[in-house]
Amino acid sequence: MKGNVIVGQSGGPTAAINSSLAGVYRTAKDRGAKKVYGMLHGIQGLLQERYIDLSEHIKNELDIELLKRTPAAYLGSCRYKLPEIHENRKVYEKIFEILNRLEIEAFIYIGGNDSMDTIKKLSDYAIVTGQPTRFIGCPKTIDNDLALTDHTPGYGSAAKYIGTSVKEIIRDGFCLEYEKGVVTIVEIMGRNSGWLTGAAALAKGEDCPGPDLIYLPELAFDPEKFSKKIKKLMEKKMSVVVAVSEGIKLADGRYVCELGTSVDFVDAFGHKQLTGTASYLANFVAGEVGCKTRAIELSTLQRAASHLASRVDILEAYQVGGAAVKAADEGDSGKMVVIDRFSDDPYQSGTELKDVHKIANGEKLVPREWVNEEGTYVTEEFITYVKPLIQGDVSPVMVDGIPRHLYRPF
Amino acid sequence: MKGNVIVGQSGGPTAAINSSLAGVYRTAKDRGAKKVYGMLHGIQGLLQERYIDLSEHIKNELDIELLKRTPAAYLGSCRYKLPEIHENRKVYEKIFEILNRLEIEAFIYIGGNDSMDTIKKLSDYAIVTGQPTRFIGCPKTIDNDLALTDHTPGYGSAAKYIGTSVKEIIRDGFCLEYEKGVVTIVEIMGRNSGWLTGAAALAKGEDCPGPDLIYLPELAFDPEKFSKKIKKLMEKKMSVVVAVSEGIKLADGRYVCELGTSVDFVDAFGHKQLTGTASYLANFVAGEVGCKTRAIELSTLQRAASHLASRVDILEAYQVGGAAVKAADEGDSGKMVVIDRFSDDPYQSGTELKDVHKIANGEKLVPREWVNEEGTYVTEEFITYVKPLIQGDVSPVMVDGIPRHLYRPF
Repeated sequence: MKGNVIVGQSGGPTAAINSSLAGVYRTAKDRGAKKVYGMLHGIQGLLQERYIDLSEHIKNELDIELLKRTPAAYLGSCRYKLPEIHENRKVYEKIFEILNRLEIEAFIYIGGNDSMDTIKKLSDYAIVTGQPTRFIGCPKTIDNDLALTDHTPGYGSAAKYIGTSVKEIIRDGFCLEYEKGVVTIVEIMGRNSGWLTGAAALAKGEDCPGPDLIYLPELAFDPEKFSKKIKKLMEKKMSVVVAVSEGIKLADGRYVCELGTSVDFVDAFGHKQLTGTASYLANFVAGEVGCKTRAIELSTLQRAASHLASRVDILEAYQVGGAAVKAADEGDSGKMVVIDRFSDDPYQSGTELKDVHKIANGEKLVPREWVNEEGTYVTEEFITYVKPLIQGDVSPVMVDGIPRHLYRPF
Repeated sequence: MKGNVIVGQSGGPTAAINSSLAGVYRTAKDRGAKKVYGMLHGIQGLLQERYIDLSEHIKNELDIELLKRTPAAYLGSCRYKLPEIHENRKVYEKIFEILNRLEIEAFIYIGGNDSMDTIKKLSDYAIVTGQPTRFIGCPKTIDNDLALTDHTPGYGSAAKYIGTSVKEIIRDGFCLEYEKGVVTIVEIMGRNSGWLTGAAALAKGEDCPGPDLIYLPELAFDPEKFSKKIKKLMEKKMSVVVAVSEGIKLADGRYVCELGTSVDFVDAFGHKQLTGTASYLANFVAGEVGCKTRAIELSTLQRAASHLASRVDILEAYQVGGAAVKAADEGDSGKMVVIDRFSDDPYQSGTELKDVHKIANGEKLVPREWVNEEGTYVTEEFITYVKPLIQGDVSPVMVDGIPRHLYRPF
């Protein structure tokens, strides 16, 4: 490389997004980039000329290892959608003025669907206006809902955390006996896709019966059938654990979490806060069955728990970052790095480039045939798909009993 | 030992309670006990003659290691308070009939305040009626609220999980910018004592600013002062993280969580469900400050996360189990094993025996001087106290990407 590289992070944070950043930095340096800049808070920050020289922050090999183990976006993230080029050329002129001034040869953006939309628009603009900068996207989302890639970095670590936590919750549920039993509802992220919620099935193994029911947002949720299922389970066992996606909906399209929303849960702007699926269902079951119930939301923990990251996930995130820089260096633009799976067992994968026009704003859902007929559990195909992605550990660097992160004051 | 040993677990589960069970089993076997029985679901199960021969379940050294890493009560737990002896002698006659039939020389009970009450009553009855069985209690509670012991097994692991998770939440909170900032409220267990909530301060270090505010249940909570504090913090930073105990109360004694309780949250028995402190405060702040807010409950995860256990905690739990058997074998009864701390740094501790009459039903709160004057953070003394208890790790035995536990179908 002859010029400089700039990298940004965008969208919801994950436990793996910084490993991609580490991969970008390392490969850019290896390939001779003079400077590697980091946009602060993505394209939104860049528009405000907020960026840093990464070599002032990543000073040695230990820093790279710490960065891989640091959750959330090290550079800060944003949720910002670029206007269409014909709507507002000024924004594009501003961005390219900055990129040209910084002599940016490669622009790498790590994120999900919206971020790939950014790559698409910037690379289109560069082609139309004959700018030299090349634009490559790096996939990242715990939701795993990006099209054309087998899976996305961030998903494997979240799945590992979910499988482990649900297993610990199941163990906890069995050990206290309540006269009429106990039903635990675990709420897992995923507004439209059930990739994360399905990972609750990873709790199942030789030493754990796994959750009893799993409900994904891809299929309509029927409270009456659910209640019957629970009653039947409670005839046989004292502790029932149910994994539900935050986004499950009734057949008429209403979110389950809206059913229980009281005025208390309208925020300052008058928006209904769409949380509380587990709370609502726990109360619903208590009323229907008359047993003790518990609601547990895995919430932010499931996307931030780098202390329990998957080694496969962290390494792939790192590789994907490196592959993005390599692609830009070799002249590609308007592409996203995707992960191809060659084999489930032994697991083998590699990276490839796909045209970002075919990816942006798409959404990959769990296939219908990966959920059982009743819509109450994932199938073996789902398990075969997810299991390789949670393998191996990345030992946290423990300092004084707590995992160490690479820190940059905000 | 010439006779047999029986061991039970009682009260809320923890990540360390099974390490005490492992310690009891190992020391009993080492000292020549013929059989080591496990009561299923504590004294309540014993009364129904539900018990197992532990050597049929703990078959080798690997099983002992797995047991140390298994969260929740392996034998099942109960919340059962024995009647006073003069109220119902029948219960005692039944228990001792079983103990004598099983030739029980030592009865070890692992639990919190209520469990020590059980040890007290049974040892009193044994003395009064001239029975040979000896009764020893093993402390266990994540709440750390048992009197006379420096701390209780289970607390260190929960504190480590809380410090780590709060740090990950802080990292997550900083990386997304919201126009008016974001306030995250983390709800931590502890109805009356703030030992667990104070552990949120462990997130603070060279690489993390730590939570901004910490509210313990020992001090009255003032929503107006809280709101002012938040507004002042939001002038300086975009992300504020607050740790609150589930049990914080107003000066008039009302629980904060009751303030937001709507009819939705009354359970099947008409009991108000006392959860939702974080939800209520998140909505309160959104209304007062007009910013985005998030509520996170660490819930069951904080007592079940054996994947992030403290080595000091797991080893002390094991030692305490062994010390209980040794004490019974040497003729003690009506005593609880306590942990004495000889030094903070380097940390040194040992076990001792205390008369259970002095412990049962007491409650140890966080000293007033370990909280700052305003009541918004713990002091250095608190940190010095808790830090040694979270040191070191117990690597989970990972099988297929998920921690392995010792399993006994319920």
